[in-house]
Amino acid sequence: MQHEIQPERSNAEGSAGLTEAALGGGLERVRATAPLVHNITNFVVMNTTANALLAIGASPAMVHAVEEVEAFVHHAAAVVINIGTLSEPWAEAMRRAADAATAAGVPWVLDPVAAGVTPFRSAIASDLVARRPTVIRGNASEILALAGGMGGGKGVDSTHGSTVALDVAQRFAAETGSTVAITGEVDYVTDGGTVASIANGHAMMTMVTGLGCTASALVGAFLGAGLAPTAATTAALTTLGVAGEIAAAQSLGPGSLQLNLLDQLYRLDRTILTRYGHVK
Amino acid sequence: MQHEIQPERSNAEGSAGLTEAALGGGLERVRATAPLVHNITNFVVMNTTANALLAIGASPAMVHAVEEVEAFVHHAAAVVINIGTLSEPWAEAMRRAADAATAAGVPWVLDPVAAGVTPFRSAIASDLVARRPTVIRGNASEILALAGGMGGGKGVDSTHGSTVALDVAQRFAAETGSTVAITGEVDYVTDGGTVASIANGHAMMTMVTGLGCTASALVGAFLGAGLAPTAATTAALTTLGVAGEIAAAQSLGPGSLQLNLLDQLYRLDRTILTRYGHVK
Amino acid sequence: MQHEIQPERSNAEGSAGLTEAALGGGLERVRATAPLVHNITNFVVMNTTANALLAIGASPAMVHAVEEVEAFVHHAAAVVINIGTLSEPWAEAMRRAADAATAAGVPWVLDPVAAGVTPFRSAIASDLVARRPTVIRGNASEILALAGGMGGGKGVDSTHGSTVALDVAQRFAAETGSTVAITGEVDYVTDGGTVASIANGHAMMTMVTGLGCTASALVGAFLGAGLAPTAATTAALTTLGVAGEIAAAQSLGPGSLQLNLLDQLYRLDRTILTRYGHVK
Repeated sequence: MQHEIQPERSNAEGSAGLTEAALGGGLERVRATAPLVHNITNFVVMNTTANALLAIGASPAMVHAVEEVEAFVHHAAAVVINIGTLSEPWAEAMRRAADAATAAGVPWVLDPVAAGVTPFRSAIASDLVARRPTVIRGNASEILALAGGMGGGKGVDSTHGSTVALDVAQRFAAETGSTVAITGEVDYVTDGGTVASIANGHAMMTMVTGLGCTASALVGAFLGAGLAPTAATTAALTTLGVAGEIAAAQSLGPGSLQLNLLDQLYRLDRTILTRYGHVK
Repeated sequence: MQHEIQPERSNAEGSAGLTEAALGGGLERVRATAPLVHNITNFVVMNTTANALLAIGASPAMVHAVEEVEAFVHHAAAVVINIGTLSEPWAEAMRRAADAATAAGVPWVLDPVAAGVTPFRSAIASDLVARRPTVIRGNASEILALAGGMGGGKGVDSTHGSTVALDVAQRFAAETGSTVAITGEVDYVTDGGTVASIANGHAMMTMVTGLGCTASALVGAFLGAGLAPTAATTAALTTLGVAGEIAAAQSLGPGSLQLNLLDQLYRLDRTILTRYGHVK
Repeated sequence: MQHEIQPERSNAEGSAGLTEAALGGGLERVRATAPLVHNITNFVVMNTTANALLAIGASPAMVHAVEEVEAFVHHAAAVVINIGTLSEPWAEAMRRAADAATAAGVPWVLDPVAAGVTPFRSAIASDLVARRPTVIRGNASEILALAGGMGGGKGVDSTHGSTVALDVAQRFAAETGSTVAITGEVDYVTDGGTVASIANGHAMMTMVTGLGCTASALVGAFLGAGLAPTAATTAALTTLGVAGEIAAAQSLGPGSLQLNLLDQLYRLDRTILTRYGHVK
């Protein structure tokens, strides 16, 4: 199911993959436009998410009050909704922000953290999926749980490998109209048709909390800079993976990795992305 | 009151102290089992607590909604309840999680941050104590305030030395059935009978916010790995103290200490713990 | 409008500026008194704010529940109210804390994050301004928005330069009775009459989230140590600017800057402040 994207056929606007030039160009566009990324995210990662967005050149805002969330969406270039530390008042803000973003044509990302683990969480995640996110990014378990809830799965659980998850993700993308990304040792991005894979990152990244959340936020930055959904997602995941593997090589452990990653996101450029990015 | 634990009589399952072998064995058990530690904790430390749990090899989750907190407890190997940035909706989640943990036989830790400072905070802390935490960890002021509220104190205030605090802690442990830890320059762990003391750590650790909260979370990790309450508590405090003093020796200030501590938690092994741990 | 403060006429208690001796003396007073700074602040910066206060020698607390916020104010040497991640329950706690602080004679700082961006946020910020903060610290856009809402502006927007912002700030300070600080490439502090300017800091500091919030918290530390409003504000902004520029010189990017800044706040002393502080 995994197609190798032909570089000569790829471009930053219309493909599930990216030429190397488009990849570097996307990063430069983020830095040139400094898109305002409106995050409704979890308490664990608010600081590190904001710092990652700043390091890459975007402009983060964290706004969740039901009284202002819709008004704020209109200032945003992209919205990122992450259900990590969920509660009902926040869920209401998420629904309002999603609807306001859709109505205003602002692209938005859903990060369905721990979907499938409790009924409360699964119900809210499915309700947000029904609002048609531009991009959904999760790990294999989360995407399988969501797709199952949508009728697209068959009780597939996390003991299944990534090939099964990818099949489900493709059907799920086709059903929902969202670009779907499954991140893991290899990341996959699909719009239901084409599939891009990104083989970057480092095992130590799983010992820093919230790097999946950072990935979703970076997707928001590339969407906010004007890239099309699959291109934005592929560029964001490659950017994080390359910065992470360079940072890991410099780190004694996950504490230094967390800061070195921010430094590398800041220092990354077209040359580094082209040299280290493994996008197919 | 402070007993020196005889190494030949200690073991990881049944003693207030730990042999050096048990200490290293506990850490290895955390890494082998990657226990899911369910935290209901404060906004200040959520990120650093999650990272400390990951660095030691545990699997953190931060879940507090009343709609899902009981369901989530059933996935957890241990629960950690920390009242740092308290509010009534969170207090309700804490009560439900404590009751669900007790009912399901999941061990749980109470960190009564700033108990005694306001009546609101003291009342909620006492209410949680009455639900019989497996372990209560606080500084001397917090434990004295709680024990006083339980009838075990006599207006003892923080001008009293740690010997007085230890006496109170022993009576408090005996009354409540909880293992009680008082952390400070020297840490004490008691089940009402035996007392272990840990003389590790570094003064600069008091200039990094939330390391007491980290200590409580690590107790959750060792409980979740199957160690008995006093063994788990002693192992967790020794692990943090040893990692902290190695990290402090490498740090120009509290900023570098925060990250070096995570690196050292990650790098710690049986040999390092045995060489640097000062447990009696 | 910007007066150069004559060093021989300045002192830490009564001037908009500070002699170099007063600047160093203020820092030493913070360390000697370890003032308890009560913060009601946003989720993004709670950890980094607490760490900055600890690094400078103050004692931070984050307390926001309506049930205890007034009781807690009575333990505090200063209160810092920051509306970053605002919601109505928190706004109510902010109003109560502000009133309790005013009633008890405890100095308090308002950080009107993103005032002017949504009506909800502007209304709460103006309501807090009407409660007469001791110090208001914001960027030019925030101060202009607030002053406009108070009748002191004329539709001035962020395209206007800092000279216009400073004029508005002076009138705003005179109208409200608050000391007003506008931070940016150069920081300005005014009580409506005199103006101090601080030319410290580094451009990379804008890529670390929440350093404006840190600035407001440090103002609280210097107020809590007993300095007069303009002196406390000037000392705090100089302290942060000097520590930040030393830290930036040591940093590969914003990740290392965040930690080096904490180390430098911890290591700063009278000699370093005197050598690097650019206060006029």
